[in-house]
Amino acid sequence: MTDLLNVAILGASGYTGAELVRLLSRHPRVAITALTADRKAGHAMADVFPQFAALELPKLTTIDEVDVDAVDLVFCALPHGTTQQVIAELFETKPSLKVVDLSADFRLADPDAYETWYGHPHHALELQSEAVFGVSELYRDEIKGARLVANPGCHSTTSILPIVPLLREQLIDADAISIVSATGMSGAGRAAKEEMLFSEVSEGVHAYGVGKHRHTSELDQEFDKAAGRPSRATFTPLLIPMNRGIYATITVTLSGGATAEALHAALQTAYWGEPFVTVLPFGKVPQSRHVRGSNSVQLGVMADRGPDRAIVISTLDNLVKGASGQAVQNMNLVAGFEETDGLAQLGLFP
Amino acid sequence: MTDLLNVAILGASGYTGAELVRLLSRHPRVAITALTADRKAGHAMADVFPQFAALELPKLTTIDEVDVDAVDLVFCALPHGTTQQVIAELFETKPSLKVVDLSADFRLADPDAYETWYGHPHHALELQSEAVFGVSELYRDEIKGARLVANPGCHSTTSILPIVPLLREQLIDADAISIVSATGMSGAGRAAKEEMLFSEVSEGVHAYGVGKHRHTSELDQEFDKAAGRPSRATFTPLLIPMNRGIYATITVTLSGGATAEALHAALQTAYWGEPFVTVLPFGKVPQSRHVRGSNSVQLGVMADRGPDRAIVISTLDNLVKGASGQAVQNMNLVAGFEETDGLAQLGLFP
Amino acid sequence: MTDLLNVAILGASGYTGAELVRLLSRHPRVAITALTADRKAGHAMADVFPQFAALELPKLTTIDEVDVDAVDLVFCALPHGTTQQVIAELFETKPSLKVVDLSADFRLADPDAYETWYGHPHHALELQSEAVFGVSELYRDEIKGARLVANPGCHSTTSILPIVPLLREQLIDADAISIVSATGMSGAGRAAKEEMLFSEVSEGVHAYGVGKHRHTSELDQEFDKAAGRPSRATFTPLLIPMNRGIYATITVTLSGGATAEALHAALQTAYWGEPFVTVLPFGKVPQSRHVRGSNSVQLGVMADRGPDRAIVISTLDNLVKGASGQAVQNMNLVAGFEETDGLAQLGLFP
Amino acid sequence: MTDLLNVAILGASGYTGAELVRLLSRHPRVAITALTADRKAGHAMADVFPQFAALELPKLTTIDEVDVDAVDLVFCALPHGTTQQVIAELFETKPSLKVVDLSADFRLADPDAYETWYGHPHHALELQSEAVFGVSELYRDEIKGARLVANPGCHSTTSILPIVPLLREQLIDADAISIVSATGMSGAGRAAKEEMLFSEVSEGVHAYGVGKHRHTSELDQEFDKAAGRPSRATFTPLLIPMNRGIYATITVTLSGGATAEALHAALQTAYWGEPFVTVLPFGKVPQSRHVRGSNSVQLGVMADRGPDRAIVISTLDNLVKGASGQAVQNMNLVAGFEETDGLAQLGLFP
Repeated sequence: MTDLLNVAILGASGYTGAELVRLLSRHPRVAITALTADRKAGHAMADVFPQFAALELPKLTTIDEVDVDAVDLVFCALPHGTTQQVIAELFETKPSLKVVDLSADFRLADPDAYETWYGHPHHALELQSEAVFGVSELYRDEIKGARLVANPGCHSTTSILPIVPLLREQLIDADAISIVSATGMSGAGRAAKEEMLFSEVSEGVHAYGVGKHRHTSELDQEFDKAAGRPSRATFTPLLIPMNRGIYATITVTLSGGATAEALHAALQTAYWGEPFVTVLPFGKVPQSRHVRGSNSVQLGVMADRGPDRAIVISTLDNLVKGASGQAVQNMNLVAGFEETDGLAQLGLFP
Repeated sequence: MTDLLNVAILGASGYTGAELVRLLSRHPRVAITALTADRKAGHAMADVFPQFAALELPKLTTIDEVDVDAVDLVFCALPHGTTQQVIAELFETKPSLKVVDLSADFRLADPDAYETWYGHPHHALELQSEAVFGVSELYRDEIKGARLVANPGCHSTTSILPIVPLLREQLIDADAISIVSATGMSGAGRAAKEEMLFSEVSEGVHAYGVGKHRHTSELDQEFDKAAGRPSRATFTPLLIPMNRGIYATITVTLSGGATAEALHAALQTAYWGEPFVTVLPFGKVPQSRHVRGSNSVQLGVMADRGPDRAIVISTLDNLVKGASGQAVQNMNLVAGFEETDGLAQLGLFP
Repeated sequence: MTDLLNVAILGASGYTGAELVRLLSRHPRVAITALTADRKAGHAMADVFPQFAALELPKLTTIDEVDVDAVDLVFCALPHGTTQQVIAELFETKPSLKVVDLSADFRLADPDAYETWYGHPHHALELQSEAVFGVSELYRDEIKGARLVANPGCHSTTSILPIVPLLREQLIDADAISIVSATGMSGAGRAAKEEMLFSEVSEGVHAYGVGKHRHTSELDQEFDKAAGRPSRATFTPLLIPMNRGIYATITVTLSGGATAEALHAALQTAYWGEPFVTVLPFGKVPQSRHVRGSNSVQLGVMADRGPDRAIVISTLDNLVKGASGQAVQNMNLVAGFEETDGLAQLGLFP
Repeated sequence: MTDLLNVAILGASGYTGAELVRLLSRHPRVAITALTADRKAGHAMADVFPQFAALELPKLTTIDEVDVDAVDLVFCALPHGTTQQVIAELFETKPSLKVVDLSADFRLADPDAYETWYGHPHHALELQSEAVFGVSELYRDEIKGARLVANPGCHSTTSILPIVPLLREQLIDADAISIVSATGMSGAGRAAKEEMLFSEVSEGVHAYGVGKHRHTSELDQEFDKAAGRPSRATFTPLLIPMNRGIYATITVTLSGGATAEALHAALQTAYWGEPFVTVLPFGKVPQSRHVRGSNSVQLGVMADRGPDRAIVISTLDNLVKGASGQAVQNMNLVAGFEETDGLAQLGLFP
């Protein structure tokens, strides 16, 4: 490793790729040495994302053109399914490489769960077994020593952060969790599809993937582990007309005489001193706009009108803490940097 | 009553007032004879809402200037609290008057519930006892004979329509209903408040009134009655960046071995032939944009991944079926018109 | 012709097709007898546009499946270029057919201009010579007797309506017209393209087709004719984050000592009594939201701070008066109906 | 001056105040020592702008509570009109203070122009005469030595940057400049006004201040000076439904045989090496979303279809380069810091 960590971004022409460039180009200890985008190979990054017009960046290339030996760490922002093959080959070429993978390919520790949710067997089971699930605050120590970090899904991070501490402390019923997770459009990526056109999305809202969204499998994995027994969350994502942000409204049933205030206290304890997780005062409602553009999560706990339920709300920017920001945070852990390096951006509001 | 029904709109300078004008000015059997707006009295309606520039409409006046004797039916689109006094005086002047009230003042049959949720005793209890709760499809017969119709809240109509038939048939657990009801901004009215500015609302989402939104009391009233026992819904409204539309995502627990398909069948049966309620095919997800500008409700039922829960989704335009459209529908019932008169507008999409 | 006019809509799966259905399904003298959409043939219209779920509509078919003999009038909402062939064949099958064409194929009377702007010779020159340019208010008499009406472009209608009367009266300099015409996204159609994705369009604005947008050729044709000599308009369209609406800001230089007030008076005279064109009081600024969903145009004239220039503003809904609404208006003229039939919808605001 | 520059922000509860906090809290050489907001005095900044929840910031106070002696530089983000008095008093207390004023009070060098446009005589003429107009790229040297910098208006900066070099080189006609400048809502500030509500602004566009917007006076001042003779620009601002961004579409007439390409070359020369001004390749159209959140300006030059005109487009973020970012840039000049310090944020897209 030279003074600067040399990183490559595979899949730089998508939104998470661009967001990695935004964050890493201001990171004090990183040099971006390769950017790939198969269909745009040969173009300048500023052709694809003109906000980078004033930066000096490597040209977009194919993956094959990347000199892996010159790279210390790879961010993989490729489509689900193709990623496992690509990463296996990268490690073959250079076993000492570090990888932060933003796809879903290595998130599920259980191969059967993977096959159930993704419809085909996993093609890199050995790598899967060494991958660390990258919710930075929950698995900090494991991430530090990892070669392969599986960055979690955007909806997953949003709900895992507030719910896991409550399940660990047995404050809520693991069988009765109802999550409605509203997301902006950038989470759907940049592929041209009719249902993602402005005119189809603006001035409206609708659910999608009801009863079967794949991020549910990540919730199951983490909620089961935290509760110490099988959990059951009902997870319904909504698409709303904004670019960035996820907003999870979680209805929970209190267990063992717990109060909403106790939930709040547990979250305060769990995230005390965390630079990116803010637990708002009890009863204060988070707003997605206050985390836009930043790596922050804002959590709120509110009492329901009756005694046995509470509403927990979690919000983050799906492209930052929900994807590229957490990926940089995980890179910082892997590389031994300050965890906040390159992540100082504050929320952009208005 | 002359050939045309003479109607007055009290509170015509707000959004629900304007929406009444939009619908009634194309109604074949209605004449708008008075429009009031205390702070804008003396102005033309087209000064306040220039989309009406080509219409001939009465000038805006104060309420005192209205010739009640010349009016057959009054729409009350005034703020909560002041309405009960105004309506009591109107009936004193002309006992044969019909009133469709869009405020919350006469929605709760139980005076104690009113006092609990609104913080003061009801000032027109006698009128309260004769008011009919105006969910048109559920109380059609009572509305036909009513002198005073209490038009329900926008969130209330959205959730009552899908849930009441399910509770009546005992298909779902009355104790475990979780509602997240996303609404556009027009429901918040036209009063100038910082938190309603474009820059505060655009590109973001947040919950409001968590655990204490007053529409909850209407849900309680109707859910209890339908279930035949005390119900418990947790109701969380979200504000999202669009003008019109409410989208309720309702997580329900199935009871007595019911299936999601059975819920769907029950809604199909309940709303068979209804002109304004469309039950989508099983598993099809409603979108708010498909009801924008129309008096339609679209309902959908989806299975959750496990056997004992389902997701029920309901969407309508908060200013039409959620307010002024249902008010016109109720007027049609009260006046003996065709229920669909003046309500033929189709959804405006895109 | 039977009691009802039997109409077919070719290209019903696009936004202008859907808008035709919205308007015609409430038209008192029209029956929709055929809807075509090549790629969606076999589907119900409500599959493609669920806002029509409660309507009885013919299934989508291919164009070949349409029984032309049973059709009185055809709306052509097909892509530019393919249309001239389709219409030529329709007239061959049934010479008495009436056609309102929403494409650009028959808008330019001069074949050389067509070739210059569209890059290939016109393939139906004979039909071109009989086509009438369908700005309803300017060519009412010609449209009444036409077999083929060429519905103008959305930007074109927006700027032609205010500028032509001023040029005819020689009140403004034909050589110094600067038009900046901001449009919502629905004008770009429903084809899935990256640059039309919500995330690409929301929270931003940009010009497109600068110096070469094809609607310029329609402005040239009409401005030259009105001025009686070659005109020169600079036309720059902007794409802004809304669904519907065009808003043309036109800077004009006054000629022959004319005043801004004189411009205003000329527009008032030109459009006196027109049901769909409202000239606002002098100095009052139009807003696109006041015409959303209606067939209305709102025009405004404002003085600049100096003596020799004025600002003229024109706004309409690109899908209604800018496309399908004016098409219905033209159908009404062709068929001898009331010009306002089926076009009573008021602006939807908010 | 200590190691860190101690700055106070007067008017920190508005959007430009918050934007100053966003930028300065990450500035390597600045300490924020005072934040004032008369109506919110006593509150934490995070109460007013929760995106700052994780920062340590001084409490909001009144202006009187600020210890001016401990302050090196003041940012004035107060309403127009009241500012001149406040700044005069600050200088009385501490003559060595530096002030960057974001209001309009000191922008116009000519007292008569001020009185004409603002409707009352200037109350601090002496200070006016020493104020430097703060377009950083044009007045860099004067700003370095200034005690009082008058930060220009957001529309002004947007149009001055591309037009002044063209006038200086006599490439365009100073008498025939037509500017349509579309702006997002955050430029209108945070005061609660009906016309700024989300429902009034979303899904629409309208002009405002037509023929009389006060930023015109800044254009006049700078255009006259650059041309060396009286200029005449027609300036029409549009309000469009987005939070941030200004997009000026400028139609110019070429003079002395200049070509559009020559205009482009002149802008490239003028801004060669400037860190915040990017001149796009000839013919490439800027988009406002590519500068969102950054201090960048993107300029484009396009040929019109005829030989004697061109379209010049300029876009920036009204809260950054249009206000607080340029204020920080000016502070950097005044304080002798690197001009880019604290301004490294890249555009946030999507």
